[in-house]
Amino acid sequence: MKDKKPRRTVPRVPRGFRDLPPEVVATRRRMIDTVCRVYERYGFTPLETPAVEYLDCLGKFLPEADQPDGGVFAWRYDDDDWVALRYDLTAPLSRYVAENFQELGTPFRRYQVGQVWRQEKPGPGRFREFTQLDIDVVGAGSMLADAEVACVIAEAIEALGVPRGSYEVRMNDRKVLNGLLEKVGCTPERAVRVLRSLDKIDRVGPEGVRDLLGPGRVDPSGDAMEGAGLEPAQIDRLLAFLGAPDDRQGYLRAIGELVSGTKDGDAGLAEMTELDQILTERGVGDDRVRFSAAIVRGLAYYTGPVLEVVLTFPVEGEGGKTQPFGSVAGGGRYDGLVGRFLGQQVPSTGASIGVDRLLAALQALKKLPARPGRCPVLVTTIEAPHRAEYQKMAAELRAAGLDVELYVGSGGVAKQFKYADRRGFTVAVVAGGDELGKGEVAVKDLRQGVEQSQAIGDRAEWLKTLPGQVTVPRERLVATVKEFLARYADAS
Amino acid sequence: MKDKKPRRTVPRVPRGFRDLPPEVVATRRRMIDTVCRVYERYGFTPLETPAVEYLDCLGKFLPEADQPDGGVFAWRYDDDDWVALRYDLTAPLSRYVAENFQELGTPFRRYQVGQVWRQEKPGPGRFREFTQLDIDVVGAGSMLADAEVACVIAEAIEALGVPRGSYEVRMNDRKVLNGLLEKVGCTPERAVRVLRSLDKIDRVGPEGVRDLLGPGRVDPSGDAMEGAGLEPAQIDRLLAFLGAPDDRQGYLRAIGELVSGTKDGDAGLAEMTELDQILTERGVGDDRVRFSAAIVRGLAYYTGPVLEVVLTFPVEGEGGKTQPFGSVAGGGRYDGLVGRFLGQQVPSTGASIGVDRLLAALQALKKLPARPGRCPVLVTTIEAPHRAEYQKMAAELRAAGLDVELYVGSGGVAKQFKYADRRGFTVAVVAGGDELGKGEVAVKDLRQGVEQSQAIGDRAEWLKTLPGQVTVPRERLVATVKEFLARYADAS
Repeated sequence: MKDKKPRRTVPRVPRGFRDLPPEVVATRRRMIDTVCRVYERYGFTPLETPAVEYLDCLGKFLPEADQPDGGVFAWRYDDDDWVALRYDLTAPLSRYVAENFQELGTPFRRYQVGQVWRQEKPGPGRFREFTQLDIDVVGAGSMLADAEVACVIAEAIEALGVPRGSYEVRMNDRKVLNGLLEKVGCTPERAVRVLRSLDKIDRVGPEGVRDLLGPGRVDPSGDAMEGAGLEPAQIDRLLAFLGAPDDRQGYLRAIGELVSGTKDGDAGLAEMTELDQILTERGVGDDRVRFSAAIVRGLAYYTGPVLEVVLTFPVEGEGGKTQPFGSVAGGGRYDGLVGRFLGQQVPSTGASIGVDRLLAALQALKKLPARPGRCPVLVTTIEAPHRAEYQKMAAELRAAGLDVELYVGSGGVAKQFKYADRRGFTVAVVAGGDELGKGEVAVKDLRQGVEQSQAIGDRAEWLKTLPGQVTVPRERLVATVKEFLARYADAS
Repeated sequence: MKDKKPRRTVPRVPRGFRDLPPEVVATRRRMIDTVCRVYERYGFTPLETPAVEYLDCLGKFLPEADQPDGGVFAWRYDDDDWVALRYDLTAPLSRYVAENFQELGTPFRRYQVGQVWRQEKPGPGRFREFTQLDIDVVGAGSMLADAEVACVIAEAIEALGVPRGSYEVRMNDRKVLNGLLEKVGCTPERAVRVLRSLDKIDRVGPEGVRDLLGPGRVDPSGDAMEGAGLEPAQIDRLLAFLGAPDDRQGYLRAIGELVSGTKDGDAGLAEMTELDQILTERGVGDDRVRFSAAIVRGLAYYTGPVLEVVLTFPVEGEGGKTQPFGSVAGGGRYDGLVGRFLGQQVPSTGASIGVDRLLAALQALKKLPARPGRCPVLVTTIEAPHRAEYQKMAAELRAAGLDVELYVGSGGVAKQFKYADRRGFTVAVVAGGDELGKGEVAVKDLRQGVEQSQAIGDRAEWLKTLPGQVTVPRERLVATVKEFLARYADAS
């Protein structure tokens, strides 16, 4: 007989996934609520679609779509068709609108908060499950819609505490890019690969892009990336384009020269010119929305204006080098996505904020509350015979509007105090038979204790002074706890 | 050559999945927020775990776990191990606690809101993706924890507007059930099947349970269900047990007689006796928490007290028959779940509210707001040359704290008014060159229009009286819109 002990299961999450502890969840939720309020202010209403969609409904628009696994988590369903976890919220929206087109009418404006999943290579800060905050206007061809999306996203970013001047919405136009490709003589078959190479400029730099547009490149991890096979002269013209000025007037002049005379280029230029006018009417200048020839976006479904929100303040990057924080949101116009289902064009536009990227940015900006997601008050239960009284005290404190945990674990006063410290409570309520016999109860300021004990550094001394602990009549319990909590602005 | 027209994709969701439109999302979110606030009041803090977990970490506890597909959506991961969408929030919690056991310490209290997925047979009101609102206390063996969970769930249900007397928390104990099985001579191998048969009493009735405990049963859909193979005398004793009184004192007396003398039965009885004492100390009587021998719960991981929350008010059921609304929440003690990973017992307990079931209940109780999830104000854009002014008016109204949509679609005044009616706006702002030339703007009460036009039934008459529309000086725009909105309590 072999070893009969059952093998223990190893607790672990799949690569690229992660848990979010209480402090993170509380902060994220506040952030999400703030953004949703801005979306609602602009008349967007919430929609939720399933996590699982038919693969053909999602379509193949991810940069990884041409790889064997297609960049998504997919499996066969009951009816033998393939289903997958959604990779964004826009493809499901287009399915939803197509399915309900007659009842909905247009324009249909919705926002959606939800997780999306991508089977990409995980890395530091790169997860396979992440949360997006989308707004979209379906069935509106006017540049008024694109301008509104850009402005709403900018306002949401500001509402979170990112000051004007620390972010930029950068816009470009896929039609302009197509006009440019036509000008340099790039064949349509190569267009997607060329655009994705241009999109990598932030990650690989101009020389990296030069390699990707030409013979190909081996990235630092050793993976070979096929090149687009363009000639050096073509590459030079493309790189010159990326370097066009990024104030709106400068962009329109420079790009006008580069792409005019092509059908797509002229159409794109007209869109960007109108966009500039609408933004100017709204009082939105280059300090908030710029035009940048280097904005491409990786998804294949964009057809018109595209946008990216970049945080421009510096953070410490890899190897200690200072660099701008980078992109936290993106989007664009996708006039063909709903049409895949209906056989008619339904011009649409939208954008998405990446919750996790933006959260990291707010942390860097120190715009997040200090101790969120914690319960402030612990009622200890140090002597079993007084269980009824402990329950009553907790109920009274809750009735007074406080968040209160009743200790329901095992162990006596020492263990319960250790627990209180570890969990970061602000106040503990303690009462044994001695106190309760005299009609009294002890209230302890746990933070003051921590601070003083650190300052004094002498445990005996600390125990003797019992910092921040008072014994009060039982009927003063609620008032005393409130007084203690009032010492700390962030305690409740 | 065959037909070259590209085949259109059919927009559809996988069987058992669904979209949630804006009014539903807005209501659900309010409901979820209310419940979370109650959870926080009791010191629970939020946790989020991934949607995807290793299959062995989730374990096989679903009623469907012995079927080929195991009741979950699963696929092979990068490393060739199986992963699955989580089927509840408790199994992932146990994985999380086991993985972080040293840093967390116990008791660990958390709540979690999240979607879960089950590959069950979909049906009316039965979906494969649904949302749960969980609370759990990990690392607390005391009945204080079980009592607290029951009370918090009851308070959450009340906070949503379900009056006391319209719901019951019903508790039982798996140890009591095991004691009973021992008493009737049911072998441990049959125990799970017997418990699951008992759990079906609400769905199949006593005679159905009799068949399931004996020779088996063919359900109305034609599926054959294997029986537990018990003798008629054993079945009689089990059914007598299910009929035990459900007031706490009555239960304790009746069950005491039935299961005492077995190890599990005595242990379970001690737990339920203590639970009754704690609840009584808290002032919680039979009107809120009852004990019921018929509560079993379908998940295999429960080891002690189990609970179910039942709404007792009548609703119309299948075939027009009136019946109690039924279960909206459930839970129990699972002392072995974390131990699967650690090799040591970590006594734990918790419960889960089913968001969608409860939402249906609140709808039946008419506890939901009338017109949620809609934007109240539409600024129309009927003449392109005045685009700048329309944008300015929308910005002014937003700055005054109102939610405002600027119409960004195509079409003139008729199309835009039709859109305004269809979307349920309360107020529309309209201004053409005539009005703006005189420094004026028109504000229209869209609801009054609808009501009056219905009452008059004469379109010509209605157009002549222009009900609820006023033309005011441009600077009176914000004040007038606010006056119009103030007519309707639910408009903003």
